[in-house]
This record gives sequence, C-alpha cells and structure tokens, in this order.
Amino acid sequence: MRFHDISVTVTSMLPTWPGDPKVELDRVEKIEEGANANVSRVAMGVHTGTHVDAPYHFLEDGTTVDTLPLDILIGSVQVVDLGDQVDLITADVLQKASIIPGVSRILFKTRNSQIWERGETEFQTSFVGISADGAEYLVSKGIQLVGIDYLSIAPYKNSRPTHQILLNAKVIIIEGLDLSNVKAGVYQLVCLPLKLGGSDGAPARTVLIEQ
Amino acid sequence: MRFHDISVTVTSMLPTWPGDPKVELDRVEKIEEGANANVSRVAMGVHTGTHVDAPYHFLEDGTTVDTLPLDILIGSVQVVDLGDQVDLITADVLQKASIIPGVSRILFKTRNSQIWERGETEFQTSFVGISADGAEYLVSKGIQLVGIDYLSIAPYKNSRPTHQILLNAKVIIIEGLDLSNVKAGVYQLVCLPLKLGGSDGAPARTVLIEQ
Repeated sequence: MRFHDISVTVTSMLPTWPGDPKVELDRVEKIEEGANANVSRVAMGVHTGTHVDAPYHFLEDGTTVDTLPLDILIGSVQVVDLGDQVDLITADVLQKASIIPGVSRILFKTRNSQIWERGETEFQTSFVGISADGAEYLVSKGIQLVGIDYLSIAPYKNSRPTHQILLNAKVIIIEGLDLSNVKAGVYQLVCLPLKLGGSDGAPARTVLIEQ
Repeated sequence: MRFHDISVTVTSMLPTWPGDPKVELDRVEKIEEGANANVSRVAMGVHTGTHVDAPYHFLEDGTTVDTLPLDILIGSVQVVDLGDQVDLITADVLQKASIIPGVSRILFKTRNSQIWERGETEFQTSFVGISADGAEYLVSKGIQLVGIDYLSIAPYKNSRPTHQILLNAKVIIIEGLDLSNVKAGVYQLVCLPLKLGGSDGAPARTVLIEQ
C-alpha cells in the first residue's frame, strides 16, 4: 500500500476565504518555560484548508458535518486530471472527461493545485470551480462525493447555485485538496472530517491509498 | 464493510484537560441573518477529544504531528477489552491480556469508555492509564501505536514517565477514544489527525473498519 497525503498543512500562513476567520496556531504551554508538556491551541473557521462541506453550510435545514456517512467518505475514488486549460468545470467539460461509468466518488485535479505548489499565502480568486450545469451533471450521474483542489467547489462570486445543487442531492463536498503530487486514476479515498457537533463543515485530513 | 466511529463529538460541553483551552464552537455567519452561507469557527487545545500525541508533546526535540507516518496511523489493530476491574495498565496486566503476538497497533478498552457513555461534561480524574512499566512492556513488544479511551495514556498526576517512554520509542499515542460500542477483536484502524504544522498533537477522527 502506498499513501498519498492530499491534505494541506494548517498554519497561520494558510490563505482563508475572504471574511472567514484566520488560522491561529500557537503553543500555549512550553516545556522550556517550565510546563509539564508542550500544548498548542488552534482557532480557525471550519472551512479552512482541506475540509468538508455539510448540507447545513448552504441549506438552513441541512444536515451537519458530524452526521455525514462514513461509507461515502471512505471508498473507491476516481481522480480526474482536467489539465491546465480548464477554467470552469461545466457539463460539457465533464462529458469529455473520461469519468468511469458508475463511479460514485470523484476528485478534480485542475490548475488550482499549482497554487498550493507555489505556496501562495494570499487568497486567490481566479480558481477553477464547477458551474451549476456541471453540478447538475454530476448529480444526474449518481456522484455521492466530489472534491476540488482549491477552497470552493463553485466559481468565485457565484457560490450558491453549485453548492445548493450538490448539497440538496446530499453530495459530500471536499474542498482545499492538494492534488499536485497525484496522477489521474483510481484510488481508495479516506476523508475524515473532525466530528464537530452541529457544524456546517469541518477540516478533514484526506488520504489516497494506492493498492 | 462495517464502520465503527470511535471518535467523540467535539462540542463546547466536551470535558478538557485541566488548564487546557476550552472548546469554542460557534456559528459566526448565519444564513437567517443574511449571510451567503452558515460558517462556524472552532477554537480548542490540540489535545481535545479524540486526538493524537506527537513526540514534541513531551520531548523538546521530538517530531511534530504533521510528520507522523500514515502507514502507522492506518492498518490492522487489536482492540483489547480489559473489563471493569483494571485501574492501572501495568506490565503484569498486559502479560495476561491476550495480546496477539506480532501485533503493532493496540487500543485498550477500559471502564473509561463508560465516562463517554454517561455523557460526563466534567473532567474525570480517576481514569485508567498505562504505568511506566506497562509502557516499557509495549515498547519491548514492538508496539507502534497505542490508544486509550480517556484523555491521557498515563495515570492522572503522573503523565511524564509513560508518555516519555512511548514517545521516545516513536510510538503514536491516541487518546480520547470512545470504545463503548466496540467489542474486542481485530479491525482495520484509520486514525487521521489534522495536519497542524509544527504541532505537539492534533484532533483526529478515528474509525474502525470491520471486514
């Protein structure tokens, strides 16, 4: 078994969605100052770094992240590499994308992954997302989990339609993946969001297993 | 495949180690108040709820949680049920505990799991931990990961020896597991700590898979 960690590292330098809380990560007890142990504290928005959106993020009566089904968060996944030239993932793009018939989990590698590779600390607005008709296409194909390699599944300044279509259909959304070191193909996905009670989302360490 | 979620739910009611930061979990953007989406913020000590200790927690030159090897955090694990009568997990207790020869990951179910079942919101001091000679026994048997069902692997008021023996030997420690619904046996463990850069520990969603 070979493991690919597709999670970004959470530090206070990590770019965050405009208006969302910044990451604070500080050691609050220090052995060198006489403490029994080193103890850190983290404070962040729940949509920080690699994270999962629950329906409650965009739907007032939606389910929360602590109830998302593990049998969707864990299982076989297709990584689709859309290359550098796709700026918006539309139904038309998806029809040509060699999606394996019957697949239920899909991660899109786009030029977004280069943002993580470059180590940008400022939030980037020109990222690739999925259009509303792209979201409808994925739902029509029975997709149950979809992931993308920057901080929103939807294009910037047009968050609602894509999120609502996916979340209404109970599709789990993973955002903030770093797919820069992963090739297209089929893997075992393990995405484990923190079990934050009643929350609209949660940071999620996410790993691909190659068997 | 059957999934057993052995993580506790993180809420502001969760008991925390004395002196550690309390959990804050609040919705800071609300759809019903005109926001585009619901967005929550979490603040907590990194040793909150179900979490992993990295060597840096007790060793000044120890490695940090973002570098812990995934091939130890994921794999075959033995859950050992020590029953209600064990108050301290010593080498003597371990010799009689039917540990499978050659096993490298082990989780101890003790009377601690009843604390989670009862829903205690106050920190409990009379929990079961592993003694220093118990820790040495585990290291001598080649254990690479050990988990326990309350907030410290070591007895209360005697944290250092057990932690130092395990962490010096690069044994990964999982604390705060809820094993109340799990029987003794062999499972596949998936423990994914948040990738907190340079941190002494991290909250970790943790799941057992029964195949």
